[in-house]
Amino acid sequence: MNILYDERLDGVLPRVDKAALLIELRAALPDLEILHEAEDLHPYECDGLSAYRTTPMLVVLPERVEQVETLLKLCHRLQVPVVARGAGTGLSGGALPLEQGILLVMARFKRILEIDPVGRFARVQPGVRNLAISQAAAPHGLYYAPDPSSQIACSIGGNVAENAGGVHCLKYGLTVHNVLRLEIVTIEGERMTLGSDALDSPGFDLLALFMGSEGMLGVVVEVTVRLLPRPQVAKVALASFDDVARAGGAVADIIAAGIIPGGLEMMDNLAIRAAEDFIHAGYPVDAAAILICELDGVESDVHEDCLRVRDILERAGATEVRQARDEEERQKFWAGRKNAFPAVGRISPDYYCMDGTIPRRELPRVLEGIARLSAECGLRVANVFHAGDGNMHPLILFDANQPGELARAEELGGKILELCVAVGGSITGEHGVGREKINQMCSQFNAEELTLFHAVKAAFDPQGLLNPGKNIPTLHRCAEFGAMHIHRGQLPFPELERF
Amino acid sequence: MNILYDERLDGVLPRVDKAALLIELRAALPDLEILHEAEDLHPYECDGLSAYRTTPMLVVLPERVEQVETLLKLCHRLQVPVVARGAGTGLSGGALPLEQGILLVMARFKRILEIDPVGRFARVQPGVRNLAISQAAAPHGLYYAPDPSSQIACSIGGNVAENAGGVHCLKYGLTVHNVLRLEIVTIEGERMTLGSDALDSPGFDLLALFMGSEGMLGVVVEVTVRLLPRPQVAKVALASFDDVARAGGAVADIIAAGIIPGGLEMMDNLAIRAAEDFIHAGYPVDAAAILICELDGVESDVHEDCLRVRDILERAGATEVRQARDEEERQKFWAGRKNAFPAVGRISPDYYCMDGTIPRRELPRVLEGIARLSAECGLRVANVFHAGDGNMHPLILFDANQPGELARAEELGGKILELCVAVGGSITGEHGVGREKINQMCSQFNAEELTLFHAVKAAFDPQGLLNPGKNIPTLHRCAEFGAMHIHRGQLPFPELERF
Repeated sequence: MNILYDERLDGVLPRVDKAALLIELRAALPDLEILHEAEDLHPYECDGLSAYRTTPMLVVLPERVEQVETLLKLCHRLQVPVVARGAGTGLSGGALPLEQGILLVMARFKRILEIDPVGRFARVQPGVRNLAISQAAAPHGLYYAPDPSSQIACSIGGNVAENAGGVHCLKYGLTVHNVLRLEIVTIEGERMTLGSDALDSPGFDLLALFMGSEGMLGVVVEVTVRLLPRPQVAKVALASFDDVARAGGAVADIIAAGIIPGGLEMMDNLAIRAAEDFIHAGYPVDAAAILICELDGVESDVHEDCLRVRDILERAGATEVRQARDEEERQKFWAGRKNAFPAVGRISPDYYCMDGTIPRRELPRVLEGIARLSAECGLRVANVFHAGDGNMHPLILFDANQPGELARAEELGGKILELCVAVGGSITGEHGVGREKINQMCSQFNAEELTLFHAVKAAFDPQGLLNPGKNIPTLHRCAEFGAMHIHRGQLPFPELERF
Repeated sequence: MNILYDERLDGVLPRVDKAALLIELRAALPDLEILHEAEDLHPYECDGLSAYRTTPMLVVLPERVEQVETLLKLCHRLQVPVVARGAGTGLSGGALPLEQGILLVMARFKRILEIDPVGRFARVQPGVRNLAISQAAAPHGLYYAPDPSSQIACSIGGNVAENAGGVHCLKYGLTVHNVLRLEIVTIEGERMTLGSDALDSPGFDLLALFMGSEGMLGVVVEVTVRLLPRPQVAKVALASFDDVARAGGAVADIIAAGIIPGGLEMMDNLAIRAAEDFIHAGYPVDAAAILICELDGVESDVHEDCLRVRDILERAGATEVRQARDEEERQKFWAGRKNAFPAVGRISPDYYCMDGTIPRRELPRVLEGIARLSAECGLRVANVFHAGDGNMHPLILFDANQPGELARAEELGGKILELCVAVGGSITGEHGVGREKINQMCSQFNAEELTLFHAVKAAFDPQGLLNPGKNIPTLHRCAEFGAMHIHRGQLPFPELERF
């Protein structure tokens, strides 16, 4: 599907004359690299959510903060929309460009400015890759905790924009819990500091407000992240179950026992088989579900918790519990999980990755609901998820070449997300809303709440020039989409009342 | 000092006719308890910052959320300012009432609605006391981590309003890190949910924005907090130093070694002597400074870290390191620290408690700066602080009955906070801004930043009816106060350049 310029933005934003804009830009920023030919713009048509594509009007690649300031001042004066982009690995189309706007690529801001082992923070530019921070901190025995699966490629600026998570965020939190300070540039071209190296910052918590704001409030030009001491040891157990709900119950039991695993992941049979076929991780291909439970910390502590976890898993009905014998096997267990998405990509022409979160106790009920919705719709769903924190990634398998399958996949995806909202969860865990889930926001929030979001947005960007059409739907769009706000506990589908 | 109605609010807010308001209130809310006689209003003149006092026009004590909705709707229609109040233990005058406004006391909302040991959260009303949550969670082996010294009395709603901390927030975070969901009522009387029980919530992070917002954005009517498993063991070491800077260095060494203590507190000689005299905690009265370092977790882990900490302390120059022999002695070590404020109150007619935060590495330099400012001003300063996270509580000793001493204490306090800002810290760690530090906000933030705060405030409360005159100064006030915004690294006093 090739989503062109979002017609809903017409009338809201003035149309821009590309040639005139180019002249203005070159005059104001003679040393700024600007891409404007069709073949140069092509690679920037989409981010990691490749189903949505738009050719940006212009792409700019600044290298210095002053250039960003001047650029935004100019865009503000000329009323030109701006979409900021990090490494372009986002999965919800947050960096999808606009036909009538500038794509501001921050990829060249890749300097690590400071590593402070006593203050335990790293000050970096927004284009620095997530993994590069941990590599730079490694000589001090420190690392940056949030680890999205794309951590080799994704940038910390993009992590901030989407409030990225990862397999370890059960224990160590999302991006919002690991960023201390941001330097940003407002749409008026003003540079500002949010947060501080110190414990707390007075006034309103604009730092947290920026996390996950998808470039709608300002452009991040510097990020100070918290560094953590690397755990002495990490051990992984792999548990097999012949029943998915029982695996869900085991998750609840581990948490209820007061253990906080570094990671606690679940995969169902379809995902297990796909991953095993691809990675040969040693997964039990006949299991209905597996749990991967990592414990990290100091040696003695981890040893003790491993015994307790094994006991809990066995009592919860695990048919087998295997502990990784060595670091190599541990890495293999993880590799299967971390490559589950591409693995599923090998068994289906296309797949659609969802990212809902639910309260942990609802795991069995939601899994049952997904199975029923999947059967009704006639599309297979592979379940891979951060079970410990209730962040689900159902992968809907379909074939875009079969007429109507894409539409059915989207419909099924929408229903799964609405089920998440109905049990008290949300439509996103760590991938953001972006362009993809903007309609589902109408289910998640009511008109008053959306109005408040728009008012907050207007406090930063009254003209709506920063990444318009993402994250927060207009009330008009919700009315058009025909979405009903779902109250917690109110199941959207009568057929689900049974659960 | 008896601060009457803040004249700066005149002209901004309409004056209110008390008799007419009372009639309207009684008509709209016949079962709402309203206090309006002078003797009934007296106890509500101030919060924990007793230096500032104002008699509220009316005090209301609702018991149900619907009453709060109706009340705020009415105040919105009649343009009556509203100040919300929890237990009134705040230390920055955040709940200081207005002569021309209603004081909305949330003390009767004291029901614990739900404890979920699997989801590990507690859903409570805002008037529930901080400690009561941990007590209710105790049968499940869980507790609520943030522990302000006032935890026996302070309410969770007030904790949210001030983003309260405590001696354990180095390891477990401030209130913002431990709250999952809020139910709030807007000034228009609309009820709204911020955050969710699930991992993440899409849209802008209004939940975090509410933390520390001092009742300026809405009134909190329900709080869902995260519960943590109670650590198996907690052990405390008490280290003596004959030099304050060396104690500061030891703090940096512990953190740099990758140890995260449950609490890491420092007291200087004046504070040690006052506390020992009052509590008989067994502190070394001749030490220039002591560190109290608590390690918590599982037995074996804590044991190992205790040995490492002792080693670090000794190498950093501690003259003595004593480990609490048993739980009783551990409690005694903490009692001395937790009662340091009243202890200092016994050795001086009055004291003024500051709450600045600084980057950890600046501890020695700031301590030296405070000593110099104290000498220059001729007032003694006792230093008590959460050293691990750089949250300082210098206590300025003075006698309000000596002409000019209060003014000198306030001036010294202002200079200490400006020093904190200059080294990259902030004017508050956990007590909030309230009425007390509103002028210092002009040093902390520049005009663009303050303008942004006001725009965010206006998104929730365009008429400025919720707790006006607190937290965020007007630009006009800053101009009047003659404050200069201090840039990081720019020392405000030439005499401090030496450090």
